Amino acid sequence: MEEKKNYKLTVAYDGSSFSGWQVQPNGVSIQEKLEHALFLILKEKVHVTGSGRTDAGVHAAAQIANFKTDRPFDLNRALYSLNGILPPEIRVLDLSSAPPSFHARFSAKGKCYTYRLTLGPVQPPHWRHFSWHIPWKIDLPSMERAASYLIGEHNFSAFTNESVSKDAKDLVRNLQRIDFVPWEFGTVIEFEGNGFLYKMVRNIVGTLVEVGSSKRKPEEIEAILASQDRKKAGQAAPPLGLFLSRVIY
Amino acid sequence: MEEKKNYKLTVAYDGSSFSGWQVQPNGVSIQEKLEHALFLILKEKVHVTGSGRTDAGVHAAAQIANFKTDRPFDLNRALYSLNGILPPEIRVLDLSSAPPSFHARFSAKGKCYTYRLTLGPVQPPHWRHFSWHIPWKIDLPSMERAASYLIGEHNFSAFTNESVSKDAKDLVRNLQRIDFVPWEFGTVIEFEGNGFLYKMVRNIVGTLVEVGSSKRKPEEIEAILASQDRKKAGQAAPPLGLFLSRVIY
Repeated sequence: MEEKKNYKLTVAYDGSSFSGWQVQPNGVSIQEKLEHALFLILKEKVHVTGSGRTDAGVHAAAQIANFKTDRPFDLNRALYSLNGILPPEIRVLDLSSAPPSFHARFSAKGKCYTYRLTLGPVQPPHWRHFSWHIPWKIDLPSMERAASYLIGEHNFSAFTNESVSKDAKDLVRNLQRIDFVPWEFGTVIEFEGNGFLYKMVRNIVGTLVEVGSSKRKPEEIEAILASQDRKKAGQAAPPLGLFLSRVIY
Repeated sequence: MEEKKNYKLTVAYDGSSFSGWQVQPNGVSIQEKLEHALFLILKEKVHVTGSGRTDAGVHAAAQIANFKTDRPFDLNRALYSLNGILPPEIRVLDLSSAPPSFHARFSAKGKCYTYRLTLGPVQPPHWRHFSWHIPWKIDLPSMERAASYLIGEHNFSAFTNESVSKDAKDLVRNLQRIDFVPWEFGTVIEFEGNGFLYKMVRNIVGTLVEVGSSKRKPEEIEAILASQDRKKAGQAAPPLGLFLSRVIY
């Protein structure tokens, strides 16, 4: 029997109408759509492993996934066929061979996310599915100051909805960068870290927007982090502004 | 009887699901949605005049329109209510008083359009409704050279689907600018002119893409223009890449 070969997928998606990355009993997932398209091409059930889950409604500019198969196929033709089978919301940007040891999740060294805010009284309709509209005045410098407390290695329990029964060390992440980048209709908040907990980016953005809306002081972030208590942080920002933009290997 | 007052609307829309700007017997138009929303607010039928029509599937970043009414109303509150009534694809960005002589169409001195091309083998799904995907290699410098022949005052009959029975002078327009602006996923072609004929931008873009695809030489544009014959130019580019971006008064 031939040994299975490993392949790497780079996938972009408009997550608006999906129940998230991961196969679920209810709702349609990106993973399921990819596995189905690969099944039609390879005539074999393959398991597609993503770099991590994205929630319902969250988008990706470049999610990374891998799968193994011993079926021979032409990479270019498969890329073309995949995009012919997949719904228009999902596009495989690249399909390539990967070393046997490559694992989309375990090999990842870090990730980048972006969260897009539309600022101003009215949201341009072209961005309604891809940005969170904040119609009231917000104080961006305060948000940047608040964000600075999150940089570095911390236990991010206060900013995740993950099970609290986890070991404390599993809740420590290193946030290398939170940048505020001006954009035609508002601000894009860019995150880079060695990993992100469940809903971490959305909980951080929601809390930062509360700071920007004068509901909290920037310095409070320090105490929220230290509390390791999810209830101390703000509400999660809606999924529609969030993009998984890069996985670092 | 009080004299009617004149109001100016700045409107953005995702034209994907509309039959165009203008009220039509079949299909839903932007104009109709605006007139209906204003009727609910003013309890009076008003006629909304746009700076010009946009075709089915064409978008606007800032279409300008005006309407007249003698009903008194609060501008800020009306802006808010309009956006509450309108479907999410249409947003009124601004509502203000206008001088009695202001006419969205006749007062316009010029217009800017943008046409967005996604270049590269796969189109990012987030742009599938707002850009034309050209998966093959295209030669942008040739397209720019071709575009340069269109700058200035010309009879644009070859690039319009308007009735040829019109007076020749009604088919002359002055194109001040065609710029190619690089964009994350391709190129945005920006047009500025004193006016545009029916389907003129889409017919120009379609022809330029044929030049970029080596189906025509850049120099052919001169002869196409001179022919004043629609059949000599290329196919219209699809509506989804086109935005009315500014009306100049």
